[in-house]
Order: sequence, then C-alpha cells, then structure tokens
Amino acid sequence: MMAPSQRRAGDTCGTLVLIGGGCSADGEALGTFVERSGGHEGGRIVGFTTASSDPMGSAIAWRNDLKIAGATNVEIPIVDRRDAAQDKRIAELVAEAQGIFLGGGDQVHLVATIGGSRVGNAIRDAYRRGAIVCGTSAGAAALTETILAGGEVDEQGVNTDMHIGPGLGLLGFRAMIDTHFAERRRLHRLFVAIASNPDLMGLGIDEDTALVVEGHLAEVVGKGGVTFVDGRGVRFDNANEVTTGSRLTLSYLRVGLLGPGYQFNLRERELDCLVKSKQTREPVASVKGEGA
Amino acid sequence: MMAPSQRRAGDTCGTLVLIGGGCSADGEALGTFVERSGGHEGGRIVGFTTASSDPMGSAIAWRNDLKIAGATNVEIPIVDRRDAAQDKRIAELVAEAQGIFLGGGDQVHLVATIGGSRVGNAIRDAYRRGAIVCGTSAGAAALTETILAGGEVDEQGVNTDMHIGPGLGLLGFRAMIDTHFAERRRLHRLFVAIASNPDLMGLGIDEDTALVVEGHLAEVVGKGGVTFVDGRGVRFDNANEVTTGSRLTLSYLRVGLLGPGYQFNLRERELDCLVKSKQTREPVASVKGEGA
Repeated sequence: MMAPSQRRAGDTCGTLVLIGGGCSADGEALGTFVERSGGHEGGRIVGFTTASSDPMGSAIAWRNDLKIAGATNVEIPIVDRRDAAQDKRIAELVAEAQGIFLGGGDQVHLVATIGGSRVGNAIRDAYRRGAIVCGTSAGAAALTETILAGGEVDEQGVNTDMHIGPGLGLLGFRAMIDTHFAERRRLHRLFVAIASNPDLMGLGIDEDTALVVEGHLAEVVGKGGVTFVDGRGVRFDNANEVTTGSRLTLSYLRVGLLGPGYQFNLRERELDCLVKSKQTREPVASVKGEGA
Repeated sequence: MMAPSQRRAGDTCGTLVLIGGGCSADGEALGTFVERSGGHEGGRIVGFTTASSDPMGSAIAWRNDLKIAGATNVEIPIVDRRDAAQDKRIAELVAEAQGIFLGGGDQVHLVATIGGSRVGNAIRDAYRRGAIVCGTSAGAAALTETILAGGEVDEQGVNTDMHIGPGLGLLGFRAMIDTHFAERRRLHRLFVAIASNPDLMGLGIDEDTALVVEGHLAEVVGKGGVTFVDGRGVRFDNANEVTTGSRLTLSYLRVGLLGPGYQFNLRERELDCLVKSKQTREPVASVKGEGA
C-alpha cells in the first residue's frame, strides 16, 4: 500500500474540507462541505464529536449547525470511547456516508480514540472511495500523518508541552495543520514545530475558513486565509533549546499566503500558477533591436 | 553625503534602541536605553512625545517611567507643532543629550512635525556623534527611511488605508519597522507592505522588547522577539489588488526570528553567525576511508 505522502493525483480519493475552527453555521466554509457532500439533496452526513470534552452536547450543537448549513440527513453517533470506535454498526454508517464530519476539541484524544479502529478505518476507506471528509479545528488537525498539539499557553494560562505525534493520515504531502491561526497568533508555534521538523510543511488555517483539498491541489474558501510554511531551507535554529516561541531564533522559513481564488500545489509546496508557469516556460516579453 | 542605506560599519554613529511599544518601566527594553545613555549617572535624556495625541500627558507619564527605569536627568520639552520643532533652544537641548527618546502615538504625525526641522536635524546629528536614540511604538516606526502606518482595523473598528512614506531615516538598510508585533497580529500587515515593496526588509518588534542596533548589527533585549521578513525572493503576489491582509496571496517571503542572544546582520539580512560561518568556510566534519 502506498503511503499518503507518495500519493499522486492519479489515485482515486475524495475531498478534504479542512476548517480552521470557529466556523459559522451559515458561513462559506461549512457550507462548502455540505454542498460537496450533496447534503442539500439528502446526501448522508455522519459526524463525530469524539474530540470534544462533551461529545453529546457538541453533537446536538453540530446537528443544529449542519442543519442551518443546509444538510437534511445528518447523524452523529456518540463515539467517546475506543469500544464505540470499534462498533461495526457505526463503521457501516460511515461506509454509507457521502460526507464525514469531525468536530473540534482535542486532536490527540481524537486520534487515540478512533485511529486504527473500525470507525477510523471506515473513514479512511470512505475517503478513498471519494467521500468528502471535513474536519474543523482539532478535527482538521487530526487528519495529517503527523499532528501538532500543545506548545502554547492553554485556556487556564498554563504553558503546555508541544506534542508532535501520529495522526489519522488522510492528508499526506508531509503536511501539518494548525487552526485558529491568525486568531490565536499561532505562527510562532507552527514555526517552532516546523523548525524542529524541517521536512514538514505547515498549513495554518484561519477561523471560519476552509482549505479544500482534492488530489494535490488545495483552495481557500471562507472568511480568512491559509498560511503555508516550508522549513526545508532552514539553515539555523535553536528550536531544540527553546520552550516558548518568543525565544526562538531561526533563519529562514519560507512563508507564503493563500487567499481565495488561487490554488496551492501541495506536492510542489508552491502556488499552482507558479508551478504551471515553470512547466510551460513562458517566453520573456521584451523588445529588442533598433527602431524603424 | 552617504545615504543611510549605504552606511557601513566603519562610519561613526550611535546606537538605536527600537522598542515594540508596551514597554514596562522596569523592563529590560527601556532599561537598556537608560543604561546605554548613562542615565543612572546623570546622563541627560531628552524625550519627545510629539507622536502622542496628548503630548503633555504622555510627557508626564514618560518622565515617571524613565525615572523608574533609573534615569536621573530627564527633560521632555513639549514639541507638538512645527514651530516648536524649529525652536533653537530645544535643538540645543538635543545637542547636549546622551540619550534621546521618542514616545508612541502616530508615526506619520511625528515625521510630519519634526522631519527636517531644527529638532529633527539635531536628533540626526546627535545620533551621528554617538548618542543613543530610543523610540518606542510610533517612535521606533518613524526612525527608518521608509515607514509604515495604517493598513489595519483601528481602535474604532475602521479599516484604515495603508500608508507607506518617508521617515526620519536614522536606520538605513532599507528596513521598515512594525511594532506591537505578536500582540497585534501584524504579520499580515507587514507581509502586505513587504510584498508591495519587496526590496525592503521588515522588522516586526514585539512589545516590551528592544532591537538594539549598532552599525550593521542588531540584538534583541527584553520580553519578546523580533521577526524579520525579506521580500526579495517573492515570485508572485496580489498585494496591489487586496485591501485586507486575509485576502493576500503570495509566494514566498523569507521569514526569520530573532530571540535574545543572537546577532542579526542588517546588511546581509541574515543571522550574523551564519554570515560569519560562510566567511570562514568551516570544514565539513566527516569520517572517511576504511576502519582499522
């Protein structure tokens, strides 16, 4: 079996709708997921609130939000423990879904609960057969092969250790997702993570904003933008010595920004318009020689 | 006369202490300015609150803060209009100062009021003879040849136009300073400014943090860090089309971070340790051949 990072555009796979958290029920980000899933016409959407500290409360809230977003056929089974994630009936629900939704909370808990389980495998299989998989906040952060959590001051004001570990692996390309990006000033955290793992590519998604991935191309939809960080060219950093982002010293990361209307080529880590212009080698426009 | 951007380390010049705003009276950033000015031993510090909307109130507040920081000989003449900036007596105060301090507020108003005036010229002359010039927030932002203001949502929630114009010109190297950097999430604003002016180098200084510049070397002191942004390698951007940072698309800026304990080479736009290692061409450590 091919690892996701080696996956090429020719492979059959579905669509990922990666939302940076804070999504409004009537916003473009969540709306794109419902629309792509055929949710307005009864396409089945199955959601999971496993990442949440209150899976039942979150399930009720998301059912309502997805309804406002136009989805008419939503089911959110409560998968809050490993045994529920091994439940065949829930895995079958996933197998019949056109859209799969992962809510926010704790991405490490989400991966620990469903990773490699019947439900987790059903989500991966559904994605491979062409389903739309949407995650918001922790639900998006969990979808890469390597995930990031912690490494910042939490809601109680405590500085938490940075966690870098395995994820659900639906998005390859050695990507790592951070969410609530502009809103929670997470650039420093992502810089520390990428400086420590310079082969990875960081994708920082703003709130109420979706990065929509099909094959090796990604596009931005919604309120904010997406920041991409490539660490392969870093020549110096002290990431192994520092515990907080403000003490980090490094030179240089390549940082780009993606707004609506442009495609990002995940394979080349570059705007697709630049990848294409390189391939076609457009002639240089010039006027030479003597005038008449 | 040589333009500041062509200035080389051999030229006589003073020290710049560029603070990102929000400086605490007993913090390391302001303390460094007072110490370098000999302020603890009666070295004269002359301050200006021209950038402030309340120059008198700010003058009283800064006199108190500078006293807490250890300065024993502080004078803050009220220069709130152009005619005060042309006052010979105030220019003479500057000529006798060991430290010159510029408070925060509106950098465009500051430059318009003192730029090219007797006081403005006296500050430049004092810097050239070796005085310490400190600016915080707008006072720091005003010190480059090209300055940045606006281009973000102001305190009244209004999206202001970005202003890029001439500054006081004490710091060359085609640098542009932004302040309150991490705190006000200004990376996008600086990205837009640099993408529109890719020959410039952006320096984003965090609050209560000083970038101390002597010749072509800069060092960080205080609570946060400094972000440096180099736009010379940008291959694509839509900066001329967008009005808000979140719609910006570009590839790529080089972004580095400077924490305490490292020197930044403004001339090479690189960590000085990397500039030096390039110059000395350290041999590659390796073991080759067959074992015994």
